[in-house]
Amino acid sequence: MSQTTKVLSVNEGALPLVAELRSRATELKLAVSTGAAGETLIDAGAAVPGSLEAGRLITEICLGGYGTVAIAPSERLPRWPFALTVRTSNPVVACMGSQYAGWQLTNAEGEESYFSMGSGPARALAGKETLFRDIAYADQSEAAVLVLETGSPPPETLVRRIAEDCDVAPENLTIIFTPTQSLAGSVQIVGRVVEVALHKAHELHFDMGAIVEGIGTAPLAPPHPDFLTAMGRTNDAVIYGGRVMLAVTGPAAAAKELAEKLPSSTSSDFGKPFKEIFSRYDGDFYKIDGMLFSPAEVHVVSLESGETFSAGQVDSALIDASFG
Amino acid sequence: MSQTTKVLSVNEGALPLVAELRSRATELKLAVSTGAAGETLIDAGAAVPGSLEAGRLITEICLGGYGTVAIAPSERLPRWPFALTVRTSNPVVACMGSQYAGWQLTNAEGEESYFSMGSGPARALAGKETLFRDIAYADQSEAAVLVLETGSPPPETLVRRIAEDCDVAPENLTIIFTPTQSLAGSVQIVGRVVEVALHKAHELHFDMGAIVEGIGTAPLAPPHPDFLTAMGRTNDAVIYGGRVMLAVTGPAAAAKELAEKLPSSTSSDFGKPFKEIFSRYDGDFYKIDGMLFSPAEVHVVSLESGETFSAGQVDSALIDASFG
Amino acid sequence: MSQTTKVLSVNEGALPLVAELRSRATELKLAVSTGAAGETLIDAGAAVPGSLEAGRLITEICLGGYGTVAIAPSERLPRWPFALTVRTSNPVVACMGSQYAGWQLTNAEGEESYFSMGSGPARALAGKETLFRDIAYADQSEAAVLVLETGSPPPETLVRRIAEDCDVAPENLTIIFTPTQSLAGSVQIVGRVVEVALHKAHELHFDMGAIVEGIGTAPLAPPHPDFLTAMGRTNDAVIYGGRVMLAVTGPAAAAKELAEKLPSSTSSDFGKPFKEIFSRYDGDFYKIDGMLFSPAEVHVVSLESGETFSAGQVDSALIDASFG
Repeated sequence: MSQTTKVLSVNEGALPLVAELRSRATELKLAVSTGAAGETLIDAGAAVPGSLEAGRLITEICLGGYGTVAIAPSERLPRWPFALTVRTSNPVVACMGSQYAGWQLTNAEGEESYFSMGSGPARALAGKETLFRDIAYADQSEAAVLVLETGSPPPETLVRRIAEDCDVAPENLTIIFTPTQSLAGSVQIVGRVVEVALHKAHELHFDMGAIVEGIGTAPLAPPHPDFLTAMGRTNDAVIYGGRVMLAVTGPAAAAKELAEKLPSSTSSDFGKPFKEIFSRYDGDFYKIDGMLFSPAEVHVVSLESGETFSAGQVDSALIDASFG
Repeated sequence: MSQTTKVLSVNEGALPLVAELRSRATELKLAVSTGAAGETLIDAGAAVPGSLEAGRLITEICLGGYGTVAIAPSERLPRWPFALTVRTSNPVVACMGSQYAGWQLTNAEGEESYFSMGSGPARALAGKETLFRDIAYADQSEAAVLVLETGSPPPETLVRRIAEDCDVAPENLTIIFTPTQSLAGSVQIVGRVVEVALHKAHELHFDMGAIVEGIGTAPLAPPHPDFLTAMGRTNDAVIYGGRVMLAVTGPAAAAKELAEKLPSSTSSDFGKPFKEIFSRYDGDFYKIDGMLFSPAEVHVVSLESGETFSAGQVDSALIDASFG
Repeated sequence: MSQTTKVLSVNEGALPLVAELRSRATELKLAVSTGAAGETLIDAGAAVPGSLEAGRLITEICLGGYGTVAIAPSERLPRWPFALTVRTSNPVVACMGSQYAGWQLTNAEGEESYFSMGSGPARALAGKETLFRDIAYADQSEAAVLVLETGSPPPETLVRRIAEDCDVAPENLTIIFTPTQSLAGSVQIVGRVVEVALHKAHELHFDMGAIVEGIGTAPLAPPHPDFLTAMGRTNDAVIYGGRVMLAVTGPAAAAKELAEKLPSSTSSDFGKPFKEIFSRYDGDFYKIDGMLFSPAEVHVVSLESGETFSAGQVDSALIDASFG
């Protein structure tokens, strides 16, 4: 990675957006409170309704402030006329260094038992994942911002451990939580359309430092009150409805290979709604073929050769089956 | 309605956008002046040309600052390649509490005779309409912002009465006027694509408090120098070209019924350009079937069941006949 | 031209965007330095990678701050799913008075020999082109902003001459350079989709003062490391993929004639990728039929008659041949 990525601070980049969540809390239908350890808690869809606009801002927070998220009409899927678009000129730092839900947060102690995958800028302070070595990124900041796909905040002991791992005072830690079933949660997960492409590129051992631009779009998945159905829909929005463009440096042959391997259709599990695949593996996420988690359609632009390598395509019928 | 809607102030929300109109007046081709009672007058298309961008900002002002308006390409109607999209996470307050043109402003006194339907934030201060009881919303603000679809500002006596009704000093009242035939006027009316859906839902006795999100899009209607043709086009843009998504709480059966009844196609007057319908009723607006005023295509997402109920469709040929 | 255009300052309008380039330089992958004469140099794609977002902001700088540029999905060309949209309510000042690359900058002195066409706000201070007489626009500003489609900044003697021509201190001159082959350069050139329509309208002797609104969209051309191929693609994006809407005042007959003559298809050179045309004329730009430089598809809205005159169409196959 270049010097560039070393000085970007995803936590500092997210702070103005966190301030916006706070100042617009009524409009965005959020609840802001102070937790037992002194941390700021922002409920974006559990005890309060939350909103699509909150989800849009939280997705930009997940990107550490280094990407934009837009909600706009799309003609690609006539039955689902609105889509979300993510664009970042710093895809590795924004998506891998911040947005990816890669930090295992566990509290095993009896009544305070808790589990969630942490995403967002705080990950880059804690640096608990080997991923950070691969992308050569670490953040430095007095304040930390963590995003959780859950319906409740972590217990105090876990909050204190998170703050410690981030080397910030609990008072300087903000935890935003958005259940998968909520409006904001739905936006926030579909908003991972570029991130899953980056993550799969990493799994494919593509040089992370070579990915210099990312734009992706996917249909807004209607929320569902059932967790599994909601999770299924948000995954299907990306897997069967997502379209991504990456611009990459380095050998054109590597770009071509990336494009061919990147679409979700290369997975042995491709072809059924996510919820069905999930139940086929008895709800064990880790048994699902990792190659499934990627956009339906990809376009990889090789800056070295000027070629664009495209593969995969949107599956309109499957989106209808999932959202319908 | 929840507590949330009670503390939103549509007038306070609009003020930064009014300040933007003033500071960008030259660029936006507006004329800003002080009226006889001390009120601020913003001409957005009568004695000055105005602009599409002014129309976009005025539409956001109509929404009390609680919605966004974008102008972007759209593939839906190849002959009319640009469309306007309105999005709000507070559709009832923004559209019904502010944007709806529901305040009858009349001055009968001889040479000062004047009539206009007032729209925008000031309505929520005056609270003259029974609608405000139904949505349980009232605003409190030292400043008032009123938007009129006219070619001239109200006479002084009427201005003073408006200020009094809003309980603000005339110096703190801003009146923006945009003729229907102007660029800004055209945008501002088509920008009611979500509002008409809300208004018809209200007519259908759907629970207003249950509507939690609204997004809508409609083609930009080309302005026409003839008032009736201009009015016809802006209405057709919504009635035959508008597409709206609402997210609602409450029983799924009610959401389903709303979707079925909401599209303009459920009206007995549906099927002809608006101008033709209007002249068929000898120009008496109130003889037109109220069910006509709604988007062509609707998608109602039931947050309770996770179902999406869709009905109606865009009529490309009719838009061509109206705009062409 | 109206009074309105006389008081807009394209240099003052660009300054906040230049400040944004500086403050976001790391994120945008720019290099900011001070040149020999004291001028600020912003490299947006020569020694540093630059980015699409930098290109988007530089395009807004080219428009003197009086237009917006958006990057978003588009369904028009399935193989090229992202497009750029330019919108301005001051098309003559923004596109002709600022964006057009019409200022010949030449330094003949031996090792310091240099040639580039200057674009951006500084042109309106120097006023070297007869065009400024035709549009009756001149800017006044203490600071000047110049954009160059090159891989290197001008030599000191030329910089001093530019500053003198603009009547600003060299310390108040900012020069932004973006090679055609770079991400930012590609955006910045495709971002001329409205400007070429304006420029051709001027060539056709259409009354510039009558053009009051412009919106245009064109596919993002993938950059190519070869200069000629990169230049070819960016031109093809506009010539075969661009769609523009202009709103005009004045006689409807003139609007109709403009629409008929405006599309690129009216050119005798139309029909081949630009690179091929360019080499057919042995790389002599000025031998190419000037009528070629315009969008593929145009819609001219006559505000006087309310008619919309449309002509030309996007050539999907040719874009595939050019970008593929």
